[in-house]
Order: sequence, then C-alpha cells, then structure tokens
Amino acid sequence: MSAPLKVALLGCGTVGSAVLRLLSEQAADLTARIGRPVEVAGVAVRRPDRHPEVPAELLTTDAHTLVTRPDVDLVVEVIGGIEPARTLLLAAMAAGKSVVSANKALLADEGVTLHTAAADAGVDLYYEAAVAGAIPLLRPLRESLAGDQLRRVVGIVNGTTNYILSSMAETGAGFGEALAEATEAGYAEADPTADVDGFDAAAKAAILASLAFHSAVHASDVYREGISAVSATDVARAAEIGCTVKLLAICERVPSSTGSPTHPTGDSIAVRVHPAMIPTSHPLAAVNGAFNAVFVEAEAAGQLMFYGQGAGGEPTASAVLGDLVAVARNRVSGVAGPNATGYAALPTRPMAETPTRYHVSLDVADKPGVLATVAQEFAAQGVSIATVRQDGHGDAATLVIVTHSAPDAALAATVERLRGMAAVRGVTSVLRVEGLA
Amino acid sequence: MSAPLKVALLGCGTVGSAVLRLLSEQAADLTARIGRPVEVAGVAVRRPDRHPEVPAELLTTDAHTLVTRPDVDLVVEVIGGIEPARTLLLAAMAAGKSVVSANKALLADEGVTLHTAAADAGVDLYYEAAVAGAIPLLRPLRESLAGDQLRRVVGIVNGTTNYILSSMAETGAGFGEALAEATEAGYAEADPTADVDGFDAAAKAAILASLAFHSAVHASDVYREGISAVSATDVARAAEIGCTVKLLAICERVPSSTGSPTHPTGDSIAVRVHPAMIPTSHPLAAVNGAFNAVFVEAEAAGQLMFYGQGAGGEPTASAVLGDLVAVARNRVSGVAGPNATGYAALPTRPMAETPTRYHVSLDVADKPGVLATVAQEFAAQGVSIATVRQDGHGDAATLVIVTHSAPDAALAATVERLRGMAAVRGVTSVLRVEGLA
Repeated sequence: MSAPLKVALLGCGTVGSAVLRLLSEQAADLTARIGRPVEVAGVAVRRPDRHPEVPAELLTTDAHTLVTRPDVDLVVEVIGGIEPARTLLLAAMAAGKSVVSANKALLADEGVTLHTAAADAGVDLYYEAAVAGAIPLLRPLRESLAGDQLRRVVGIVNGTTNYILSSMAETGAGFGEALAEATEAGYAEADPTADVDGFDAAAKAAILASLAFHSAVHASDVYREGISAVSATDVARAAEIGCTVKLLAICERVPSSTGSPTHPTGDSIAVRVHPAMIPTSHPLAAVNGAFNAVFVEAEAAGQLMFYGQGAGGEPTASAVLGDLVAVARNRVSGVAGPNATGYAALPTRPMAETPTRYHVSLDVADKPGVLATVAQEFAAQGVSIATVRQDGHGDAATLVIVTHSAPDAALAATVERLRGMAAVRGVTSVLRVEGLA
Repeated sequence: MSAPLKVALLGCGTVGSAVLRLLSEQAADLTARIGRPVEVAGVAVRRPDRHPEVPAELLTTDAHTLVTRPDVDLVVEVIGGIEPARTLLLAAMAAGKSVVSANKALLADEGVTLHTAAADAGVDLYYEAAVAGAIPLLRPLRESLAGDQLRRVVGIVNGTTNYILSSMAETGAGFGEALAEATEAGYAEADPTADVDGFDAAAKAAILASLAFHSAVHASDVYREGISAVSATDVARAAEIGCTVKLLAICERVPSSTGSPTHPTGDSIAVRVHPAMIPTSHPLAAVNGAFNAVFVEAEAAGQLMFYGQGAGGEPTASAVLGDLVAVARNRVSGVAGPNATGYAALPTRPMAETPTRYHVSLDVADKPGVLATVAQEFAAQGVSIATVRQDGHGDAATLVIVTHSAPDAALAATVERLRGMAAVRGVTSVLRVEGLA
C-alpha cells in the first residue's frame, strides 16, 4: 500500500465531526475504494479547547498554513459562509490541493471564481453536500445527465420551510404559530431569516441552475420570495383545488419562442424561489417534514426525482465523503475530474418576463356581471383563465381563479388591478401554481 | 478543436436509434461537455436493409471488425443478451476501447469477467442504462455513496410487473386478466416470462448488489419469485392492512449477529426478488405504472430514493449518453474512471437463512382455542407474531397474521404446517412483508 493521502479539515462542527468519525470508522473501506489510505493532516478550528474529541496534535487555529502545507493533498471545507472560506479555498487550490466543500453560500456567490481557480490549478472542486445534503444530485446533474438536455429542475431544498409548510397543512396553523413550533422542535434556527425568507433555497437554486444549464448563475440572479406571507387561507385554498403549498426552487430553460423583451433571441433561463401550490398527485407533494427532494425534467430521460435527507451532520458528511473518495481517486490517478463549465452562457430572464401561473381567490359582491368584469381585467393584461369556481354565500361570493401561463408581471399587474376594483371586496389569496397539466 | 472521438454502435433498435438521434441533435453540446467532438464510426446490425435512416456507409454486419478498428475509441453496446455481446465487448476492451453497455443480462452473468477485462486493459466499462433506465443510479451508488456504508437497496426495477400489479390494485382484477390487459396496452411482451417470472429484476438485483456491497453477485445468486402467483385476494388483503403489493428487488447487508449456519462469521448479503406487501406510506408504494424507483438506506446518508422512467428508447438513450460523455471525458484526459471492485467479497446468504417477515391469511373454524393452536405452530418454528386480526363470520373465522422477522425457511415451514392443520380450512394468502416498522 502506498503512502496515505493527507486531508486538511476546515471546521469541526456537526458536519466536520461526523466527517472525522466516518473517516476513522470506514478507514478500511475507504482505503480499498480509493487505493490508498486517507489520513487527517490537521483540523482548523477557532477554539481548539472546544474539541476534546480531536487529537490535540491535529488541531490548529492557523487554517491558512494548514491548507498550503506541502504534505496536504485534499482540503475539506465545512466552515460555511463567504470568508474566510473563500480565501482559504483559493489559497488551497493555488497550492495544488483538491477541494471538497459543503458551502452553498460560497458556491452560489463565487462559483465562477472557484471553478476558474480549480481549472487553472488543474485540481478538483466538488460540493455535493452544498445542495440537498445527502442526496446524490449534483454529480448526477453534472455527469449522469451530461448527454441529455435539461428542461427544468424543481426542488424542495430547504427542510425548515418544508417542515413549517407541512405542519401548516396538517394542523391548519398560521405561519407564525407553525414557525414558533418549528423553532421549539429544533427545526428552525433562533434567527430563521436565511431559511424562511428563501435565501438558503436561492443559493441552492443558483448552484443547481449553473450545473443544469452550464451557465453562470449567481444567488443575486435568483428571484426570491419566502414563506412568511403564506397564510392559513392560502393553505386551505390549495387543499380545495387538490394542491399543497411548497417552497420551490425552480430552474427552467425557457425557449426563445416565449417572448422576452430583455432577451429577444435564443433560450434563456429563469431561476426563482417562491411558495407555490402543486397538485397533491405530483411526486414532490408527498415530500414532507425535513426531507428534501428534487424533481428533474430532461428531454430524453423524462421525469426523474431524487429524494432524501437535506440536512444533518451524518447525511451531509456522507455527501462530503462521497466527494472525498472521488477527489482522492482522481488524485491517485493523477487527474482532475470534469469541471463544471459555463459554456452555454444562457442569460437569466427577469422574473417579470418569466412565464408563471397564478391562483387568485377573491371575495366579490354576488351580483350578475361581476365575473365578467373580473374576467375582463385578466384579458386586459393578456392573461388567459384556466378555471374559475364561484361560490355564493349571502350577498357575497368567492371566486377562485387559476390562470394559464403568462409573464409574471402581467399576472402581478392583474392582481393589483383587481385589488382596486369596486366589485372586489378583497383578494384573499394569491399564490403561484406549478406542476398543473 | 482536436480530432473527433469515434464511437462504434452495436445494435440499432429502439435504444440504438435514439442514441444515434441524440448524438446528432446534441452534437454541439456534447462537444462542449467532452472537449472534443464525437463521431459515429459505424453501426453494426444484422439486417442493414432494415435501417434506411442510418447512412449506408456506416452500416456493417461485421461487428467484430468494427469494435477492433484502430480508429474507434469507444464502443456502445445495445444489442442485449449474452452472445455475441460478450465476445464483442471483450474484444473491444482487449483492443483498448472503452465500453458503454445497456445489457443487464450480460452484466449480471459476466460482470466479474467484464470488469476484470476493463481493469486489465485500463479502459472504462459503464452501464448506467442496464438498471432502471434513465434513473441515475449506478453512478451514485458507485461514486456519490462511496464514502458511506450501504445497508439496503430496495427497488421497483421492472416496469411490466409494476404496471400489472398497479392495475390489479386499481381494478381488483386477477393476475391473468391484468397481464392480458398489459399485453394489449403494449406494456408486456408476447412472451412475458422474463418480466413476470422475475428474471429481469433478478439480473438488475445482481448488478445493484455487486455495486452496493463491493462483492461479486451473479444472477444465479439471486433468490427469485415472480408475480404470477399473486392473486386478487393477496392484493385485497394487502389493502386491508394498509399495504400495497410490489415486485421488489432487495439487496441487503445482513449483520453477522443474524445467525447464518452457512456463513457463521462476518456480514453476508442477501439478494432476492419477490412480490411483497409494503405500507402505502412507504415512498416506493406510490410508484405506479411503468415507473421505476430505487430506495436506498445507508449508514450516514439515511434514506434516499431515486425515481424515474425505467425503460423506453429515449430514457435509456439518455443514460447511455451520460455514460458516453463520462467515458469520452476520461479518454480525453487519458485515464480510466473508477472500476467497480469486489474487494469486500461478502458471501451471499441463502434465502432459507435470510430474515424476512410474512403476512398469512387463514380461514379457520370459529372455535375457542384455534388461535392458540395456530400461534403454537409459529412458536414451534421460532417465529414471533407481530399482529393478529381475527374476524368471525358464521362458523368460520379469518385470521390475518403478520410475523416479526425470522429466517425465511422457518416462515415457509410454518406455512406448510398450517396447511396440514385440522383447524385450518385454508391458507388464503401468503406474502412477504417489507418496510413495516
């Protein structure tokens, strides 16, 4: 057996300590699978005194020296956040180390910079754990589906919001109550902004879109709405039309035939995160609690779904180790694996021009002609109506409308006009709808 | 741009012609993803006159000359069956060509021979399309989960039988009627033996088990029962206990603590294909019609599921092209990808010693003491009962029993004993149960 491959670990929280444990427990199997043993060269942490489980001689606070040490082959980064992770990984790659990262924020913001650095240095950059935890997803997108043309990637990629929405659907609770319950149960952070406002999902959407469409997509290119405005009424309305509410990360290739004033020629991509109603018959509808799932539509492969645990120390560590084995095998063979490329360079279409469908529930006066007046507002914005349900009660009525696909701005403008109409007493629920035939 | 990579295609049926079409339609994307263009060097078929869509100068009946031609880099085999595929692929690899195959029968029977040949020649052997069509599954097992320890792989991997069982559950039809309907609808072959008797699923189970447990498993190591004995009563009984009937391919690592007289020390693997009741809440229960899905349990990753189309020209071609891109990229880098290994060399445990659970429905005389007598037969074989439901009707009663886990032979022996008991008027349904808590 040849000399061991040496790994530098940056960060030793929940994921990092699970990585260390698995590296030791699975040592014999990893050696057989890689062809050489793997040895931990050092573990960079901020407070060495907080890690009594790690052999003292491995701990260091000097991450920069660790990642550039001549004997280190591979760097595993599970610190999270932009800095110092960015600087450390760039230094590691410049020094010829291959990198495994679980850092979605960094990859979403600085993916192009990091991939360029990896290509320049001829090293690997893998980050399966950055999206949907343990679910093997990025490698299948990058590699297994490399001979196909992707149409859409639609994911439930944030466990906290999925837990909250699942519990709203089960109990009829409002958002505030469900969030409080999730916080108590340990499924939401003390400051839940990153999850609840969709920042976490948007970072993952940017990574998915970049890989799926071979184009550079940054977190700032992603349209983002969180779930804090989702009401118990929205959830109830969804159930009435055979749907359930999910926070979806949607990455689509939109054909040039779907007119875009901003990108009049060629296909473009639309990347967005927002709550949406999906039919209960859709494979994603059954994904409850803290589970994640990603639904993929490709030209030839058709519909695919990947399902599993999206977070947690052990599942995330499984994804990190899978990458570590791949990167280590490449190192043993003296090559770098396929790098992600932005060769297609498709432009990102603004949300206003992205085709979506809306569900709108209105309280209206129960008078003849109201439906006609309302329908006229949709028509005036060029929005075609798919279904209407009208339920009278006393002198009022409820109108439940689902539209066909139209540019998001036209739908939003229609809703604004409805709010101003004399015949409309209130717009009680507005949510986008996905996955309807 | 450098010289094109040349591909020899063996076979040009449904899958082969889809591969040809995609190679031409996606040529620009494939070139960008691989780094060199891909060009078809020749297409080997038995009857060139039946392929007017293929340029005549590419067609040949001499497959052997084609796969060893010095200008050919990669060979794609979509002929199926053992010979001549086996001889051709061995010749191709010996001549230094990397191979992509969709041939489950060949890989299940001759996986070790082919992998050894690939390793000896330093070429790639990929076969994603051999199991579960378009679903990226083998590469995730081989690579993404390479840092984890797999416990079980449970798959619905045969679309024909899943279509038949789904339709039995929907309509209450018996097996014969549902098969006739499936044949008419084009979901079953004129000779449905390979599907209905579980041969197709067993070949796939052998491939899955080999990769999941890094051990050589042949189709002949797989215990196999088809679905022709599944009755409308079985399906109805399943529904009564909140289950549905599926043909499952199950690959498990059984810990040494689960005694096996044949393999008394160390873990072993159990690989089997048979119909089973699974709870309707299980992610696999919702996989209906011709769809495939594979459920994976790993130590660290936890539960994962992969879902998609398991057959058809286009989906299978998507998997073939994904492999082709991987193999072509390796060729461009001058390396071979990771080969499957049998380093763990776990023995296969006989079915008799494999822990399973049974559901048994009995018609019995409605007399005091019958349950005690029946329960005594289970106890005599060392089988523990999990639940019993007794429904009296007239002078008869129905007993519905679900056992805890026990060696399959003990369960089978118990059922045999029950059939001989005076108090038992008939054993109306016997099926294994999977996925119960």
